[in-house]
Amino acid sequence: MADIEFIRKLVMPAETKIVFLVMDGIGGLPLEPGGLTELETARTPNLDVLAQKSVCGGTVPIGAGITPGSGPGHLALFGYDPCRYVIGRGVLEALGIDFDLQPSDVAGRGNFCSVDEQGRVTDRRAGRISTEKCIELTALLRDQVHLPDVELFVEPVKEHRFVLVLRGAGLAGDLSESDPQQLGVPPLPIRPLPEAGDLVASRRTAELVNDFVAQAQRVLADQHPANMVLLRGLDKRPAIPSMKDAFGLRAAAIAVYPMYRGLAKLVGMDALPSGTKLADEFDALEKAWPDYDFFYLHFKYTDSRGEDGNFKGKVEVIEEFDSYVPRAMALKPDVVVVTGDHSTPSLLKAHSWHPVPTILHSRYCRCDGTQKYGERACARGALGTFPAVDLMPLALANALRLIKFGA
Amino acid sequence: MADIEFIRKLVMPAETKIVFLVMDGIGGLPLEPGGLTELETARTPNLDVLAQKSVCGGTVPIGAGITPGSGPGHLALFGYDPCRYVIGRGVLEALGIDFDLQPSDVAGRGNFCSVDEQGRVTDRRAGRISTEKCIELTALLRDQVHLPDVELFVEPVKEHRFVLVLRGAGLAGDLSESDPQQLGVPPLPIRPLPEAGDLVASRRTAELVNDFVAQAQRVLADQHPANMVLLRGLDKRPAIPSMKDAFGLRAAAIAVYPMYRGLAKLVGMDALPSGTKLADEFDALEKAWPDYDFFYLHFKYTDSRGEDGNFKGKVEVIEEFDSYVPRAMALKPDVVVVTGDHSTPSLLKAHSWHPVPTILHSRYCRCDGTQKYGERACARGALGTFPAVDLMPLALANALRLIKFGA
Repeated sequence: MADIEFIRKLVMPAETKIVFLVMDGIGGLPLEPGGLTELETARTPNLDVLAQKSVCGGTVPIGAGITPGSGPGHLALFGYDPCRYVIGRGVLEALGIDFDLQPSDVAGRGNFCSVDEQGRVTDRRAGRISTEKCIELTALLRDQVHLPDVELFVEPVKEHRFVLVLRGAGLAGDLSESDPQQLGVPPLPIRPLPEAGDLVASRRTAELVNDFVAQAQRVLADQHPANMVLLRGLDKRPAIPSMKDAFGLRAAAIAVYPMYRGLAKLVGMDALPSGTKLADEFDALEKAWPDYDFFYLHFKYTDSRGEDGNFKGKVEVIEEFDSYVPRAMALKPDVVVVTGDHSTPSLLKAHSWHPVPTILHSRYCRCDGTQKYGERACARGALGTFPAVDLMPLALANALRLIKFGA
Repeated sequence: MADIEFIRKLVMPAETKIVFLVMDGIGGLPLEPGGLTELETARTPNLDVLAQKSVCGGTVPIGAGITPGSGPGHLALFGYDPCRYVIGRGVLEALGIDFDLQPSDVAGRGNFCSVDEQGRVTDRRAGRISTEKCIELTALLRDQVHLPDVELFVEPVKEHRFVLVLRGAGLAGDLSESDPQQLGVPPLPIRPLPEAGDLVASRRTAELVNDFVAQAQRVLADQHPANMVLLRGLDKRPAIPSMKDAFGLRAAAIAVYPMYRGLAKLVGMDALPSGTKLADEFDALEKAWPDYDFFYLHFKYTDSRGEDGNFKGKVEVIEEFDSYVPRAMALKPDVVVVTGDHSTPSLLKAHSWHPVPTILHSRYCRCDGTQKYGERACARGALGTFPAVDLMPLALANALRLIKFGA
């Protein structure tokens, strides 16, 4: 239902302000059956008070049983169908290093790898070379590889990973990957995918990328162990209507990590200077308060602790976040949403498919009697278990920013 | 959301095992307003303990207010959109008599009927002739009707009902029915439906079927009261990806009745020897345990008692089923689902549209505090009221058999 074209026609101007407080990977699991989750264990007096004045539920980011990556998880939160707007791996990697990706750029995710004398892959990650080595090798490629008529960027990421960006006219994504995903065979040639939208441009781009790979192999021939490259997820930024266009919102992102700032920029948010700590993020929120209608404030460490399998650590950072909630409330936002882009249970040390406990507060939210911010309490809330992509229309409605549909 | 093509791309191999315990028509209604349903009346200590370690909800097999037949009800349980994969009446009837239907066969459901001297239908069921008579008449047709270039099967079912199967190259379904659904008019000629996918093959098949009807009328002319045939639901098996293809599961069906075994075979399950009693079915489960990833165990009598309007009898067979649950749990399955393909309230003596009380148990299920397996208890569970077709992706996720979507 939450279809951008449908919502867009109902948007009306208003002076109201919406805040999304996003704790990455907030949803969890008990360590022992019948026990409490991280969030249920944490002392969260401020979030509990907020839940009592709110309508609550559990969001499903993509679909039943589907574990989201950060890209689709955030797109759903921002009100965009994550199955319709697909973000390639290369684009996500470029966003993650704060690369200023242009709409016509094609970005791919690269690995330095090892090949034998016959060119067959012997290690897909070249023994996870150091980041220093990666910086050295990308500089070498940047220097010595040249493609006709396109500007080339080869940017280090971490260990064996780098980003390749081609900039120029007439390029297109929808390309296959060169990574054969197995050892003992040579890298695959890059080709347009069958579903390519602009086959001529995709074919030309594939030729350029194959030329890059051939030159890279020569340049790296004497290196050890990283003497070749593998490329995946070569694509352009998806063409997404901005939050201004879709929802009439001047939107700002407050996030410390580049990837989340990049995701927000994909939907036209301004990524504000956000410092490095939670205090800096709330400073940024207060400072920018007069200038925007919508604020996305991202907190990374709930996800990091979950990924580390650190139950206690996740409890602690939840409690830290809770202590900052009054600063957001003091600004008297018209609508406050507290949620996450997905669950990251410490038990699984990974993202998961579980619904994300969610609070929606406004003067008009129809409180449901939820007493506490937690997985089970929210699951019994009046929003029930519902698609994350519905949050944005609900927030807009509660901000009195949507006219009625039909007469 | 639970789209086969989408899920298929996320499937990864694992050693985990999934069991679906399916009590046909389990959902019910109280006899008196405010009373207890059959399931709520039954003493189910084992299912109640399981519910306490699970996440619960109520599945909607097809859509709000839609009462499912057994075919679509089961397809949804197996993870297939029942509105996309439609099983014709003829195919279902063939499955019900354990007929070994081939993918290229066209099957139709037949009635023996009565017509007057002008060929106008006077009784659509020929006074519900005996099954013995039906066997005699189908033998007659099998003997005396001959069609060019196709093999013909005319198989008795029960009373006035039989199955017609055409086997040969170049046949297609998508055919209209000859049953005029009223008295005093002659049977209708069979024609290709407007939506026929292969019009040439459908037209040829229609001609063959009309030839069969004409010959049958001559063969039966002197019979009384069954002197003519009516045909409905002439179609092929739907082309359904197997559970191995779609979900990466080696799947086994344990079911006593042929139709449920047939439905399971439609999606590529092996139908195991299952005996005649519930004890036999659990024997079969234990015996086959090492050889499969997924087990569908079907229990018929909850539906039968419901159809009979036998509230007390339904309570008893639920209690019988409950007593076998520990045998399934002793196998230590990674994921256990307890559900039904639809509701069959004794009060209605028929299938109904009501959500089906459902338990999903795994190490990672995020228990929701449900205390009992029952309609109202499950409706308050964290899964809420949700599409039955979402059960399979949820089971796969809980079995750690799906990778994440997007980076």
